[in-house]
Amino acid sequence: MSETDLFPPVTPPDADVHRAAFDHQLTLTKPAGSLGRLEEIGAWLSACQGCCPPNRITDPSVVVFAGDHGVAAHGVSAFPAEVSLQMAHNIGEVGGAGVNVLARAAGARVQVADISLDHDVTGPDRVRRGCGAINIEDAMTQEETLRAIEVGKRLADREVDSGADLLIAGDLGIGNTTPSAVLIGLATGTEPVVVVGRGSGIDDEGWKRKTAVVRDAMFRARDLRHDPVAVLRAVSSPDMTAMAAFLAQAAVRRTPVLLDGVVVTAAALWADRLAPGSAAWWMAGHRSVEPAHSIALAHLGKQPIVELGMRLGEGSGAAAALPLVRVAVDIMRDMTTFESAGVSGAH
Amino acid sequence: MSETDLFPPVTPPDADVHRAAFDHQLTLTKPAGSLGRLEEIGAWLSACQGCCPPNRITDPSVVVFAGDHGVAAHGVSAFPAEVSLQMAHNIGEVGGAGVNVLARAAGARVQVADISLDHDVTGPDRVRRGCGAINIEDAMTQEETLRAIEVGKRLADREVDSGADLLIAGDLGIGNTTPSAVLIGLATGTEPVVVVGRGSGIDDEGWKRKTAVVRDAMFRARDLRHDPVAVLRAVSSPDMTAMAAFLAQAAVRRTPVLLDGVVVTAAALWADRLAPGSAAWWMAGHRSVEPAHSIALAHLGKQPIVELGMRLGEGSGAAAALPLVRVAVDIMRDMTTFESAGVSGAH
Repeated sequence: MSETDLFPPVTPPDADVHRAAFDHQLTLTKPAGSLGRLEEIGAWLSACQGCCPPNRITDPSVVVFAGDHGVAAHGVSAFPAEVSLQMAHNIGEVGGAGVNVLARAAGARVQVADISLDHDVTGPDRVRRGCGAINIEDAMTQEETLRAIEVGKRLADREVDSGADLLIAGDLGIGNTTPSAVLIGLATGTEPVVVVGRGSGIDDEGWKRKTAVVRDAMFRARDLRHDPVAVLRAVSSPDMTAMAAFLAQAAVRRTPVLLDGVVVTAAALWADRLAPGSAAWWMAGHRSVEPAHSIALAHLGKQPIVELGMRLGEGSGAAAALPLVRVAVDIMRDMTTFESAGVSGAH
Repeated sequence: MSETDLFPPVTPPDADVHRAAFDHQLTLTKPAGSLGRLEEIGAWLSACQGCCPPNRITDPSVVVFAGDHGVAAHGVSAFPAEVSLQMAHNIGEVGGAGVNVLARAAGARVQVADISLDHDVTGPDRVRRGCGAINIEDAMTQEETLRAIEVGKRLADREVDSGADLLIAGDLGIGNTTPSAVLIGLATGTEPVVVVGRGSGIDDEGWKRKTAVVRDAMFRARDLRHDPVAVLRAVSSPDMTAMAAFLAQAAVRRTPVLLDGVVVTAAALWADRLAPGSAAWWMAGHRSVEPAHSIALAHLGKQPIVELGMRLGEGSGAAAALPLVRVAVDIMRDMTTFESAGVSGAH
């Protein structure tokens, strides 16, 4: 099955509206370009929405893709694997995780999609229980891979159909910076020692184990690079595959996305291969301290909105940037123009 | 008159509470340190307030110090001098300037303090009409300088006494990046060609004129460097002097401040000399594209919260960072702990 069967063509944001948005910024009572990135963000949202000034973001939605990882048994994380389930409860039921607090402050809702957590339950978003240890085996079968893609597409459709006007994907799963390093290494042609970071806080010995796992997984997938579905099957996970499909489908549905950290951006690199052109619908929310994140952002040509030294995942970095996206709209809608305020322009 | 007569000693934020705040962050359901700068901001606010977790910021206040500058007649700005008055109206009466929109989004109020705009009015905050062209004459007399300091102190007292729990100083005045470059060059020992930027958008010829003005002003003040009041009198302006006093008095009153861009940070360098130790009560909100701003921030040892390529002034950059300061408090107050959420800690 080729990726062209999975997603319809992605149309780009409206270039004419993008130009009109920058023209509009020039009429506002400020020196030309003096609001910097906020002007770029406003113009991008205008182009995504096809109108200038853009509409305010009224229903931003964070979907946290949760899944467990076979590599967690290989000593790649500072935390025990049961934390994935505990944190899914903390995010989905208690509302007390970092992403909950940041999303609440930004006026966004948060939902957990249990794609492949390591427990014996059924559910509409479930693909399987955990996944293979990607250093020695495929993450999942071809059938499970296609199911994960369908689940991700459906989740994006569900959010857009229910009114979401900006989407954030978050990640949850002990060990998930390991497949992320593999996916980024493969997509960008970067060596394992360069893409492997400390994740949630491993020590030197853990870093060596993680690097060996990443090296072995990259070796296993070395001949699959031109087939995104095969790469996702071999060395990602059900949750990251669903996340990639979610990001691609958001673009198909012409809905802007704020990218989060290293896990989401790893999925994004392959989402743009599943549905070429998708990346134009995404803006980078933040820069994680994970080294692979900067490599992935550079490959996508994205400059993050904030750089706060965060490395929590869950969608928290994108949620931290969301207030700045909102205010970029306010600027275009609420600032006076030189004409309306009776302010003289430049010499 | 020595600066020790002007301000009482500044006591530092509470170091014990600062440590307790970092200890508290370790109990929250996230890898240690994974919220990066947000954890630092929360700990700093805890130390300023003397309690952990810190109280939410309920009444942040922006005071925009407005004044005109004699150097504006020397071709240092892209905008005509009448824009100062027009923008004071736009900020204070219409509420349609950039800082209004950004402050509204962040839940902060905005007031304009007319210190020395170029019009013939009286008012409680007025020091004089405009100021001397600092390349050839003092900005103001010694009496006016002391009056500006009193006005700035009084404005800080007024805000704190009325309940403000976080202060932002903004600037307004065509030509004001010129004295800012002078003040930063003098405080940090940096050459004019290094500190002079494009301000609101001057061309190459304007840049040359501005650099000559900065060079002449720095030369005039070369022997005053150890006397902050004399420096402010000779090469700042009434509005920037009042701003420096406002920043110092905020520290005296143990009230945290978010610094804005190049103009405010130039005043801050000298405020920390008027009232040594004040800088511990300030955090840098944003990094302006003006080259002197980075030099001043480095001299103060401050890393800004956001870097958005802004160069508007008015307090807009600090207002852009304010939502992140607010959420840093929310994190410390609202996140679950490992114990309360039943989440396992690291191995």
